[in-house]
Amino acid sequence: MVDIATRVHNHNWKIDPIVRSLIDDDFYKLLMCQSIFRNKPDTRVTFSLINRSKNVRLADLIDEGELREQLDHVRGLSLSRGESTWLRGNTFYGKRQMFRPDFMEWFEKLRLPPYHLEKRDGQYELTFEGSWPEVMLWEIPALAVLMELRSRAVLKDMRKFELQVLYARAMTRIWEKIERLRALPDLKIADFGTRRRHSFLWQDWCVQAMQEGLGSKFIGTSNCRIAQKRDIEAIGTNAHELPMVYSALAKSDEELARAPYQVLADWHEEHDGNLRIILPDTYGTAGFLKNAPDWLASWTGIRIDSGDPAGACELAIRWWQERGEDPMTKLVIFSDGLDVEQIESLYAQFNGRVKASFGWGTLLTNDFRGLVPDDALAPFSLVCKAVSADGHPTVKLSDNPSKAMGPAEEVARYKRVFGVGDQVATEVRV
Amino acid sequence: MVDIATRVHNHNWKIDPIVRSLIDDDFYKLLMCQSIFRNKPDTRVTFSLINRSKNVRLADLIDEGELREQLDHVRGLSLSRGESTWLRGNTFYGKRQMFRPDFMEWFEKLRLPPYHLEKRDGQYELTFEGSWPEVMLWEIPALAVLMELRSRAVLKDMRKFELQVLYARAMTRIWEKIERLRALPDLKIADFGTRRRHSFLWQDWCVQAMQEGLGSKFIGTSNCRIAQKRDIEAIGTNAHELPMVYSALAKSDEELARAPYQVLADWHEEHDGNLRIILPDTYGTAGFLKNAPDWLASWTGIRIDSGDPAGACELAIRWWQERGEDPMTKLVIFSDGLDVEQIESLYAQFNGRVKASFGWGTLLTNDFRGLVPDDALAPFSLVCKAVSADGHPTVKLSDNPSKAMGPAEEVARYKRVFGVGDQVATEVRV
Repeated sequence: MVDIATRVHNHNWKIDPIVRSLIDDDFYKLLMCQSIFRNKPDTRVTFSLINRSKNVRLADLIDEGELREQLDHVRGLSLSRGESTWLRGNTFYGKRQMFRPDFMEWFEKLRLPPYHLEKRDGQYELTFEGSWPEVMLWEIPALAVLMELRSRAVLKDMRKFELQVLYARAMTRIWEKIERLRALPDLKIADFGTRRRHSFLWQDWCVQAMQEGLGSKFIGTSNCRIAQKRDIEAIGTNAHELPMVYSALAKSDEELARAPYQVLADWHEEHDGNLRIILPDTYGTAGFLKNAPDWLASWTGIRIDSGDPAGACELAIRWWQERGEDPMTKLVIFSDGLDVEQIESLYAQFNGRVKASFGWGTLLTNDFRGLVPDDALAPFSLVCKAVSADGHPTVKLSDNPSKAMGPAEEVARYKRVFGVGDQVATEVRV
Repeated sequence: MVDIATRVHNHNWKIDPIVRSLIDDDFYKLLMCQSIFRNKPDTRVTFSLINRSKNVRLADLIDEGELREQLDHVRGLSLSRGESTWLRGNTFYGKRQMFRPDFMEWFEKLRLPPYHLEKRDGQYELTFEGSWPEVMLWEIPALAVLMELRSRAVLKDMRKFELQVLYARAMTRIWEKIERLRALPDLKIADFGTRRRHSFLWQDWCVQAMQEGLGSKFIGTSNCRIAQKRDIEAIGTNAHELPMVYSALAKSDEELARAPYQVLADWHEEHDGNLRIILPDTYGTAGFLKNAPDWLASWTGIRIDSGDPAGACELAIRWWQERGEDPMTKLVIFSDGLDVEQIESLYAQFNGRVKASFGWGTLLTNDFRGLVPDDALAPFSLVCKAVSADGHPTVKLSDNPSKAMGPAEEVARYKRVFGVGDQVATEVRV
């Protein structure tokens, strides 16, 4: 039977929206947003799209009109009543009312601020300027829109069965990864793949496949919309944008050196338990841990997001031991460009020595490598970062110089202040 | 949007029917039925299910109640108005009104006769007795019902994503076969997979994948329902049941020796062009060709359905040459347990020397080998054959003694009459 109403409704679609909800966003963005709303509501920040994979010429692939339609659609979104109820009433990390009433009232009224879009050298220059808590919510939707428009551009000339077999192959690939992961008895793994997903529907499929295939080893998703829809845990803590903006606002080298710790001091006031996760690599993990105040060693764990993950984990284990903490009680979240091989080897090296946990991103939700000619669906390295705060440029060093960003003289200053020496560059694939 | 009417309709389903139409049947069954309706309408024939794969214990796998429901459903079917219009009005093999008005009037009133079902030694004994043109229409529905009930029995405890990935793997496998076949420039290939299909929906998927993936190299399907639904050619000519029944009715060894040629003489009167295809292997290809009347050499081609296909094709080429016919004008249809490797090698050997064509069956519509534990979805060798005619047992020798059937003393008599010596046995997989 044909459902006439659905068919007519579909005729009336202007676009097939990529971002369907303001909570189709990473949970940590909302947590950070609330923190910023409380601590730095008036900071003016600019976010900017950066395509590290220059060979993927997005402006040649994606029609500007379609891109504007999708971004305009995102600007038209507001929190639905059901979403608001879920954020207010759901338990996150074992806590009720994670989101405070004043924040929720603000969020319920929010519309995302304007965007600025230009084409240059085959790329899109896409920037968002405004108050920090507002513009920071553009990051994930902007990435999701560009990633999915790129997928659609590649797929649009494929025929019905070619498409079906393409997805059949991608499904089989994910399932085989899940079957391998199932063999790790104490595995804890979450979906961190929103920002570079192939598409919304595909991320939703991957999450459900993890649910069925991994059972309790699958601990949740970073995506709030999917967490709500599938009734699973929303997962995430905090990101580099906090130390980057706090650091850009520092008025002296001394303030700069303290800024990353100030971020965590503010976080310490708001959160406890599994939300107290250190992200140490913004300006180099080694220096960060060496100079960290003692109270940080009592935090629940650490997230390792750049450089050599095994090396960083060994460093953290020694650091905890030196500060009298038992590493076996500590949570270590690996989240940098993981795929099954690396998860297996990190698990083998660290399970039992720490509480290892994995945030699986791009190679969960966007592994179409080798499945179309010219590898045109291979994931690529697109980010959307805070590039300035109150007129000052931001800087990121990370444990991989290929991920560094900021003006050269500022990068040099940060390296001096944070005592970062030579670093080993690793290819950034995703 | 939920389609409430569809949902409610689905609630009312007593069964999910496997055979949905009287023309969910092989085209050659209808052609033969018309021929029998004209030439031997009153012959009493018994068809019987024979499971050559004794290790597949169908009666342990398939619930008897479910089997009866499906068979009863088939008995309730009659030709719909649209189906009748299609059979009466469509062009088959370039000919309008392939089915004569008197046959169509009879077919429109037809309901399939009763069945007899018993369990014995883990197998079902399923037989159909009645007038030949009626009971012969049970063959394909009976096979399709048993094959699909077996699939359902294996799949019924699998979960949603396991199932989806199972089909993803099967789709990928078929598609990869199609991609290989696409490389053969003059390929002509048809779906012959109704009788041992995994399921109706799966056969329909495979046919559509062939349509998209092979374009004009895909010449049609043996399944009338799918040919009608997908607006493609219905393909097929005649089968062993004609010489088997004609031979069983023979009153002497002399009549027996003539019977296989009498079948083709009757066929010659009714059909021309691409429907004049010799099926020579019922009682041994070599003897059949050696003793054939001259007019048979002028027929359009030959179908090779048992034994060594390359050897049989070389035999046919020599036979045509000896009778002054040009093999390059002759159609050779390979149809015995084909898969891609064999299609490729037969194509390499015979394309250009004859007009080679392929009827791809079980390993198109039921290749789930290795995809579930214990290979429980592997295809197996189930047939439904005419076992007696007017009280006389039928005999089949074929070019592969593993496919022979009939009482031992009758097999010996037939071997003597048709001059069949030692044969090489090949494993019958599908």
